[in-house]
Amino acid sequence: MTSLTVLGATGSIGTSTLALVDEHPDRFRIVALTAQSRVDELAELALRYRPELTVIGDPACYAALQERLAGTGLAVAAGPAALVAAAELPAERVVAGIVGIAGLAPSLAAVRRGATVALANKECLVAAGPLFKAAVSRHRARLLPLDSEHNALFQALAGSEGRDVEKLTITASGGPFRCAELAEMRVATPEAALRHPNWRMGPRITIDSATMINKGLELIEAHQLFDLPDERLDVLVHPQSVVHGMVHYCDGSVLAQLGCSDMRVPISYCLGHPERLGSSVPRLDLAALGSLTFTAPDHVRFPAIPLARACLRAGGAAPTILNAADEVAVAAFLDRRIGFLDIVAVIEEVLAEDGRIAPDDLESVFAIDQAARRAAWRKVAERSHRPVSELTP
Amino acid sequence: MTSLTVLGATGSIGTSTLALVDEHPDRFRIVALTAQSRVDELAELALRYRPELTVIGDPACYAALQERLAGTGLAVAAGPAALVAAAELPAERVVAGIVGIAGLAPSLAAVRRGATVALANKECLVAAGPLFKAAVSRHRARLLPLDSEHNALFQALAGSEGRDVEKLTITASGGPFRCAELAEMRVATPEAALRHPNWRMGPRITIDSATMINKGLELIEAHQLFDLPDERLDVLVHPQSVVHGMVHYCDGSVLAQLGCSDMRVPISYCLGHPERLGSSVPRLDLAALGSLTFTAPDHVRFPAIPLARACLRAGGAAPTILNAADEVAVAAFLDRRIGFLDIVAVIEEVLAEDGRIAPDDLESVFAIDQAARRAAWRKVAERSHRPVSELTP
Repeated sequence: MTSLTVLGATGSIGTSTLALVDEHPDRFRIVALTAQSRVDELAELALRYRPELTVIGDPACYAALQERLAGTGLAVAAGPAALVAAAELPAERVVAGIVGIAGLAPSLAAVRRGATVALANKECLVAAGPLFKAAVSRHRARLLPLDSEHNALFQALAGSEGRDVEKLTITASGGPFRCAELAEMRVATPEAALRHPNWRMGPRITIDSATMINKGLELIEAHQLFDLPDERLDVLVHPQSVVHGMVHYCDGSVLAQLGCSDMRVPISYCLGHPERLGSSVPRLDLAALGSLTFTAPDHVRFPAIPLARACLRAGGAAPTILNAADEVAVAAFLDRRIGFLDIVAVIEEVLAEDGRIAPDDLESVFAIDQAARRAAWRKVAERSHRPVSELTP
Repeated sequence: MTSLTVLGATGSIGTSTLALVDEHPDRFRIVALTAQSRVDELAELALRYRPELTVIGDPACYAALQERLAGTGLAVAAGPAALVAAAELPAERVVAGIVGIAGLAPSLAAVRRGATVALANKECLVAAGPLFKAAVSRHRARLLPLDSEHNALFQALAGSEGRDVEKLTITASGGPFRCAELAEMRVATPEAALRHPNWRMGPRITIDSATMINKGLELIEAHQLFDLPDERLDVLVHPQSVVHGMVHYCDGSVLAQLGCSDMRVPISYCLGHPERLGSSVPRLDLAALGSLTFTAPDHVRFPAIPLARACLRAGGAAPTILNAADEVAVAAFLDRRIGFLDIVAVIEEVLAEDGRIAPDDLESVFAIDQAARRAAWRKVAERSHRPVSELTP
């Protein structure tokens, strides 16, 4: 019986995780479940899995959660400190599925007690990469990448030594605008940008796929996870999303991980590793698919990729700023304040004006993140001709 | 410094092996080199690598080899027993690159002294599978599959436990008749059948690709190497020959090995394993290739695949007979005695008439092999309306 905490239990990673737990009822015991604001769904999960602690991130939802779970004997808490407390409970494995900078402190808390952390939260490696990695090695935690691309690389690296590796490739579906002209992208609506061809994900990551900045952020994650420089990390556009990642070895062999576009595949690898858990996910049928195609990404229509590569090389605060400015720009785009191409333009402007001092603790990560968000809202305000006060949430 | 013996040094596997040795001059010391009849090439290699023993398989070539190497101080021998003696010299690794049943005894000799054997000779696993495997485990030899497909599976299995495996897939280029009509195949000439789209190999293996019996034989090899039954071994036609093999795991993940169609890729894996040797083979460029395609094999035009599967399931002498009858039928086709579609028809007829007693030692393997060859020549004689005596070499 493996003890398991799911941070972000009502999100897409969390629900897929619990679907796999349901397939192996004798194998997992749920220690803690958390969500940001979806009280009803969280309460239902709590009643079902009866964790030691159920935490709602938004303090405003505390009363509602208490009410829903009154008389059940289940412990309930709320707020950012309670999210950290949930991660600190002694579960052997933690699925870090909280989206955004809010996931950083709880994920780090799990690392600091030496847990095995299945990491889906991108901010840990993008906004606070060197800090987070140092904590992993200091506390002998084990990091299992849960992103489909990094999980693919992790699998294709199994049993090999890093010095044999020449290059890593992550694939990109190319998103909804893979074949679009720049003119079409300029006037793209949030609805069009949210229409992802292969994956069903949250809104930010879906827009990030449309700008392809998600691949830029993933390059930074790969750099942190696998210690390779920019020039040995590659992106290939592969619309079928069947090959998720490839390891190119020094002898000309390439090992690749393939699978259907279903997050349960990488999650189950993280839940069972080093064993593999059987699961009912759809199996890959290449004869039925017929063909897999690959092209190099177009840096003219998708300038987010070279921009993220520049941040990777610059290091310091640049990846933190990149991530924060992107989150704001995506929100502004979804709120119809700026156009689709403005997303990357806003990020570029924020990166251009900000300092490059590397964050040396969690507080300075948050400070840089907040400053970049404010700067991004200012840039959005300039572009949308509205005062910042009217825009920020 | 790794001591290395190359059995079949002048063949395609042998020359690729020595090309890799040339890339790592400080890493390998050549213990023995053998060839069947190419005296001049073997003598040149002997002068270059100065092995402890140089063996020519055909005794008729002994005098010529002696003459070529007179006064060089190099030891020379000839004949089948000398091939075995070459394999018995204490080299840590042996590349078993002899084609055909002649490779069986020398490969087995290397296994019996506990060497690491990079196995390209198919007869060891097809004609004498259970015997050969028993010798490997009894003498704690290490078997490294050198065929590109099995090497791919071996690589994609690295670091995993066998019980996680749901299915193995080997790929097939489909050969020169992938898109041909049956009518065209019926009148195909040896020249047309020898025109392999992707690989440059010896004549028998090239014709075996055209009938696709090579995939049937490879299924039998995979069955012996990886202990999976027929129904968990799959063949996919993949004309680009980029993906060589795939391991399907119980969690929906598929690990695949990819690479250019260059035998130096699997050979270098076998020479260095568990390390990888850097090499100058062309690197895979998927963006330049553009697309990879996959289809299920057509059992109507390529009945050799279901026929080989039946032999795999039957076990006993069936795989031995399959291999022997195929070698004769291919020779008869290349000699224009029978048509292309007759190759599989002859094998079927031989399989139908012969007993099914499993060979329990090397002598009975040879006896079954010889009996199947005689039967195959009789079938060829019937089809070509000529006496057997006029046909057999």
